[in-house]
Amino acid sequence: MTDCNRRLVLAQRPSAMVDGATVRMEEVPVPSPGPGQALVRVRYLSIDPTIRTWMNDAVGYLPPIAIGDVIRSIGIGEVVASNTEDFVVGEAVFGTTGWQDYTLAGAHAADLQILPPGIDPSIALNVFGVTGMTAYFGLIDVGRVQVGDTVVVSGAAGATGSVVGQIARIKGAAKVLGIAGTDEKCAWLVDELGFDAAINYSTEDVKGRLRTLCPKGIDLYFDNVGGMLLDVCLGQLALRGRVVLCGAISTYNSPQRSAGPSNYRNLITKRGRMEGFIILDYSDHFAEAQFEIAGWVADGRIKHREHIVDGLEHAPDALNLLFTGGNTGKVIVRI
Amino acid sequence: MTDCNRRLVLAQRPSAMVDGATVRMEEVPVPSPGPGQALVRVRYLSIDPTIRTWMNDAVGYLPPIAIGDVIRSIGIGEVVASNTEDFVVGEAVFGTTGWQDYTLAGAHAADLQILPPGIDPSIALNVFGVTGMTAYFGLIDVGRVQVGDTVVVSGAAGATGSVVGQIARIKGAAKVLGIAGTDEKCAWLVDELGFDAAINYSTEDVKGRLRTLCPKGIDLYFDNVGGMLLDVCLGQLALRGRVVLCGAISTYNSPQRSAGPSNYRNLITKRGRMEGFIILDYSDHFAEAQFEIAGWVADGRIKHREHIVDGLEHAPDALNLLFTGGNTGKVIVRI
Repeated sequence: MTDCNRRLVLAQRPSAMVDGATVRMEEVPVPSPGPGQALVRVRYLSIDPTIRTWMNDAVGYLPPIAIGDVIRSIGIGEVVASNTEDFVVGEAVFGTTGWQDYTLAGAHAADLQILPPGIDPSIALNVFGVTGMTAYFGLIDVGRVQVGDTVVVSGAAGATGSVVGQIARIKGAAKVLGIAGTDEKCAWLVDELGFDAAINYSTEDVKGRLRTLCPKGIDLYFDNVGGMLLDVCLGQLALRGRVVLCGAISTYNSPQRSAGPSNYRNLITKRGRMEGFIILDYSDHFAEAQFEIAGWVADGRIKHREHIVDGLEHAPDALNLLFTGGNTGKVIVRI
Repeated sequence: MTDCNRRLVLAQRPSAMVDGATVRMEEVPVPSPGPGQALVRVRYLSIDPTIRTWMNDAVGYLPPIAIGDVIRSIGIGEVVASNTEDFVVGEAVFGTTGWQDYTLAGAHAADLQILPPGIDPSIALNVFGVTGMTAYFGLIDVGRVQVGDTVVVSGAAGATGSVVGQIARIKGAAKVLGIAGTDEKCAWLVDELGFDAAINYSTEDVKGRLRTLCPKGIDLYFDNVGGMLLDVCLGQLALRGRVVLCGAISTYNSPQRSAGPSNYRNLITKRGRMEGFIILDYSDHFAEAQFEIAGWVADGRIKHREHIVDGLEHAPDALNLLFTGGNTGKVIVRI
């Protein structure tokens, strides 16, 4: 345990990828828990693409991170001191910890919750965390996945995408296709996760392969990336096809305004629907999803992989992995 | 009555606006009704933007018009000879007549239906026809218009748009805004049809005016035009806003691939939905909509205007009016 609190604050808004000028490490005194508060040592950080969007000076579903503020991030920590019965020393907690060694929980502090005992922290941040919730509610509630559907997911070897494909299979999709950026990722999707096929967008003709693999079109496209792949998949939509807009990682680091999907007009011809969502809206229903996912993990129908990066100081690099395609599965920083 | 059948056939697929080379007039013998058939003299043609899309060599919700085939169009005619009890001489009929003087109805011929007596043909093609049905089901079924909504419609002085705004008001929209291309059209929307405001997109800053007129954003955007206006309205979407994709007339004559709406990403942030539809899917429910609309027309809550063009030979020019903004209300060709 260090005797100061290292924290990564936003030094300058990035115009493209996060770089050395974006984030500054500060060393400040470890905060003292006041009445009703507990001190939490942060142990793991959930590295999610949405963090990059919070660095922009743009109104989104949450306010931007202010210059000088700690980078907002979900994480898991351990209670190391407590002035409240709500948190017992030694307990694991999760919530919005930020990119720092310590945070406060309880009254007038971060909204952290007790992590049930026995849950591996990296799994808690992955399939039981926002990642798994995003896959579950995006596919089921927004996408209304149906038995017999042909489902395509982009960013398929990422944390959310890999779970989406597996839940689609469990829910009776007739065909599950993934789009990813390397042959290794594609092999993992097919050989380990049971996808029917995977397309390497960096080497293959995505449109041509989609036409071959799903000649009747795409019933449900789960979009994590935006850009060219969204446009291509819109062009291959089946009648009454649905596009779930989860994210647009291909555009988050683009300094210029990104092009929109020209094939959106196919939504008219095909009577299609394209809908976005924010997982925070589903927080009241997380428990039911976690219960169901726990069963699937236990019986081996959902496999998951974590990509662990050691060291708080490497959190910015860990974030960049999501955009360079350097990760397979969930990126987690271990402090 | 002419003693030959003049018909306009597709001579060449247009790459931009329909011109003299697109359509060719042929004079052929008046067809003879066979057993179970009736001969129909076509009197009115419904001029709809979708006709332009059928001229492209592209798979849509209907097959393209083949080169040499009569231009597909809805119309109204009069039975002038009949070999079947289903059609009585003198009766008015409506359906897919095509751009020609005569067509056959009945067995193995055009699917025409009896027009109930007493309905003015131009109204039948406007608010009681596909135009009114499109406004009604697009706004109510696809857009799920709600009491209190801020509704924006583009192509607002067109046949569909003008009805959309009026139905939105009837259904309890708190604010109804139209976007049109001339000050005269904007004045008609506000002064005659009861829109709260109208924006002239050719002279005004649409984004700025939308921000002023609907500071809380757009709950429902009914899009007839695509292009820049779709993008701007997506950018002003309210939380859980809905975009009804009815058409994209700003793009139908564009030889090059049109840009997509860059602001589609706002669908994620705002948990928005963008959905297309084809009115043919609702044909089993037309009667209920016509019944309701008839009441609104009778009590003056829905006003309508027809823009009549005389002469079959002017049908191509009438079609072009839809794209140059030369019409206010429903364009109908009277033969």
